[in-house]
Amino acid sequence: MKGNKYGTHRVIKNEGDLPQPAEKIDNSMEIYDNEILIDVKTLNIDSASFTQIKKEAEGDKEKIAEIMQRIVKNRGKHHNPVTGSGGMLVGVVEEIGEDIADDIDLEVGDEIATLVSLSLTPLVIDEILEIREDTDQVDIKGKAILFESGIYAKLPDDMSRNLALAILDVAGAPAQTAKLVNPGDSVLIIGAGGKSGTLCLHEAQKRAGISGEVIALEYSEEGCERVRKLGLADKIIQGDATKPTEVLTKIEEATDGELVDLTINCVNIPNTELSCVLATKDSGKVYFFSMATSFTAAALGAEGVGKDTEMVIGNGYTKNHAEIALQVVRENKDIKELFEKIYL
Amino acid sequence: MKGNKYGTHRVIKNEGDLPQPAEKIDNSMEIYDNEILIDVKTLNIDSASFTQIKKEAEGDKEKIAEIMQRIVKNRGKHHNPVTGSGGMLVGVVEEIGEDIADDIDLEVGDEIATLVSLSLTPLVIDEILEIREDTDQVDIKGKAILFESGIYAKLPDDMSRNLALAILDVAGAPAQTAKLVNPGDSVLIIGAGGKSGTLCLHEAQKRAGISGEVIALEYSEEGCERVRKLGLADKIIQGDATKPTEVLTKIEEATDGELVDLTINCVNIPNTELSCVLATKDSGKVYFFSMATSFTAAALGAEGVGKDTEMVIGNGYTKNHAEIALQVVRENKDIKELFEKIYL
Ligand SMILES: NC(=O)c1ccc[n+]([C@@H]2O[C@H](COP(=O)([O-])OP(=O)(O)OC[C@H]3O[C@@H](n4cnc5c(N)ncnc54)[C@H](OP(=O)(O)O)[C@@H]3O)[C@@H](O)[C@H]2O)c1
Ligand SMILES: NC(=O)c1ccc[n+]([C@@H]2O[C@H](COP(=O)([O-])OP(=O)(O)OC[C@H]3O[C@@H](n4cnc5c(N)ncnc54)[C@H](OP(=O)(O)O)[C@@H]3O)[C@@H](O)[C@H]2O)c1
Repeated sequence: MKGNKYGTHRVIKNEGDLPQPAEKIDNSMEIYDNEILIDVKTLNIDSASFTQIKKEAEGDKEKIAEIMQRIVKNRGKHHNPVTGSGGMLVGVVEEIGEDIADDIDLEVGDEIATLVSLSLTPLVIDEILEIREDTDQVDIKGKAILFESGIYAKLPDDMSRNLALAILDVAGAPAQTAKLVNPGDSVLIIGAGGKSGTLCLHEAQKRAGISGEVIALEYSEEGCERVRKLGLADKIIQGDATKPTEVLTKIEEATDGELVDLTINCVNIPNTELSCVLATKDSGKVYFFSMATSFTAAALGAEGVGKDTEMVIGNGYTKNHAEIALQVVRENKDIKELFEKIYL
Repeated sequence: MKGNKYGTHRVIKNEGDLPQPAEKIDNSMEIYDNEILIDVKTLNIDSASFTQIKKEAEGDKEKIAEIMQRIVKNRGKHHNPVTGSGGMLVGVVEEIGEDIADDIDLEVGDEIATLVSLSLTPLVIDEILEIREDTDQVDIKGKAILFESGIYAKLPDDMSRNLALAILDVAGAPAQTAKLVNPGDSVLIIGAGGKSGTLCLHEAQKRAGISGEVIALEYSEEGCERVRKLGLADKIIQGDATKPTEVLTKIEEATDGELVDLTINCVNIPNTELSCVLATKDSGKVYFFSMATSFTAAALGAEGVGKDTEMVIGNGYTKNHAEIALQVVRENKDIKELFEKIYL
């Protein structure tokens, strides 16, 4: 039997929804003729989601596992009801529906990463094997299903699985940065010392070029030190993105009062919309990659301070995003080395 | 005493926030030297917010009044905790702080509309005089404060107060439409029969021109009939924006499978993100004016269906938005007549 290409045939609640907004989807593991069954190895929980879960569990690993199991039990997918976000996974292709087998470049046994959010992916967790709190990665025994429209990437053979997973989780960020930054631009990256922030720094520096300027804002001293060592920012500012007026003062200082052309938000906590808006020129753009972004806080906050800044919702997908993101660690040995220390 | 120009001096919780994201602000009505005190006549509650309040109150006017009073009591501002949105107000200038009196073109006694959201405006409601459920307008006895950075418009003398209020509430929508639509574009407006939708139709038709195409999607038969009478759309589609696959089919039919260059979302209910994404070309843009938009549903939904569409957060402010919006009813007598029937 053939399912809908977007997976609407698995929506239990509410009917008519697509699987992402749906309250609950069917996670029974018999596949339709246009689905792919995956034997899951590791989940990469979205950073905003995992930060929320760790907080709710007060850091207790057993509680984290319980919360994760509860989410999947209630919704048929790892769709955090508080943050609304998911993450992605790597696993081995176990079965390919007969209707699509000839049309795709996959075979049973291939190791792939899904490039659609866990917030719409039918998932069963049989057992949680290991929770790596520092990297948002969780090894499990379990299965998942990819719909016909679901995109994926075969894992590259020139890096480890965990490294590829870490990068592919945030593939949209460097790829969008590559599209958004023009030569000569001043670019501010907020949360620059994190995973997506680091990849964005590389792309921003490359695209802004010698006539441009890249400014990194980071919360912790260690984060600033990491960015400094990588040498990817013209200026590094330590600051708290939840304090908009403080951030404004620092960016005014750093730019002689000019503000920046483009701000990219890569933090994993709420309430940072206005720092981005205030730091950016009236004619500039803010790109919100962070899943902790509030739509109304951005829209009404910008209006409230009378800023005409364009604000873009970070689409996790853009053409060739997997290739662009993986290419960063191929081009930049320092980032590769840093990430290998963190994610191996 | 001079306050911060953005109003941070009135933030009670959480410190460091600007007034919009703040949990609670100080609504005591002694003004600082750079604030303006307004004697409020009418509130225009944001449509997404008022729809939610009416639902919670089950249509009961007393309960609506209670909920409104509770919001203001808890937060010092009319900032709906469920939708996150506000609205705006009209009133008479009662006092102008001495520090700014010489720099602004206002005098005590002028009638103005605030163009910053109620979600950041210190407000006191002494009495609710009349609730006009069909137009989201509520007459009150009360006071409000405008910060130094707060924008406003003097009410025009060629239309009634309620009509101007209605238009200025959604001024961002037609003004952004004017900026976004290029000659030859195909433009879809979702919620086209509503207030902002109607103003957007006018601007879209004007900018897309003879080589472009404007498609109106509306929920109700009456709404479709309103749009038909105005003659502002090349095609009118009746449909439910919470049903993405149905909307996709209809837009494919209407565009010979091409989809549209630009979709503008003007609905007042949640769960319409994916209809917009599916209706729009990969190379196209979605403009979310609706305050019921969920950031994660848009970002992860687009990723989930593998669409590269740019998605823009509807900034309530853009340069000259008040003039552009008021100009629509001056240019278009039919819209003026229609709105006068509804808002008088
Ligand atoms: N749009 C999409 O499709 C998509 C896909 C994946 C992820 N995401 C989102 O992207 C965001 C970043 O993900 P990630 O994996 O790169 O996260 P990450 O590695 O955890 O990095 C988060 C960064 O934010 C910084 N930060 C935290 N609090 C801060 C504050 N108050 N002020 C300034 N910086 C602060 C952190 O600094 P410290 O380390 O110093 O605390 C860290 O550098 C998350 O919100 C995630 O949900 C979006
Ligand atoms: N970004 C900003 O600064 C800002 C400022 C003000 C307002 N807003 C937002 O803009 C939105 C529109 O405001 P408005 O005053 O124009 O609202 P409105 O006059 O109430 O119009 C809403 C429209 O949406 C239509 N609609 C409702 N459910 C629908 C469905 N399932 N499918 C298709 N259409 C549907 C309604 O159709 P029916 O009448 O047939 O039900 C109506 O035409 C609201 O969400 C509001 O919060 C944003």
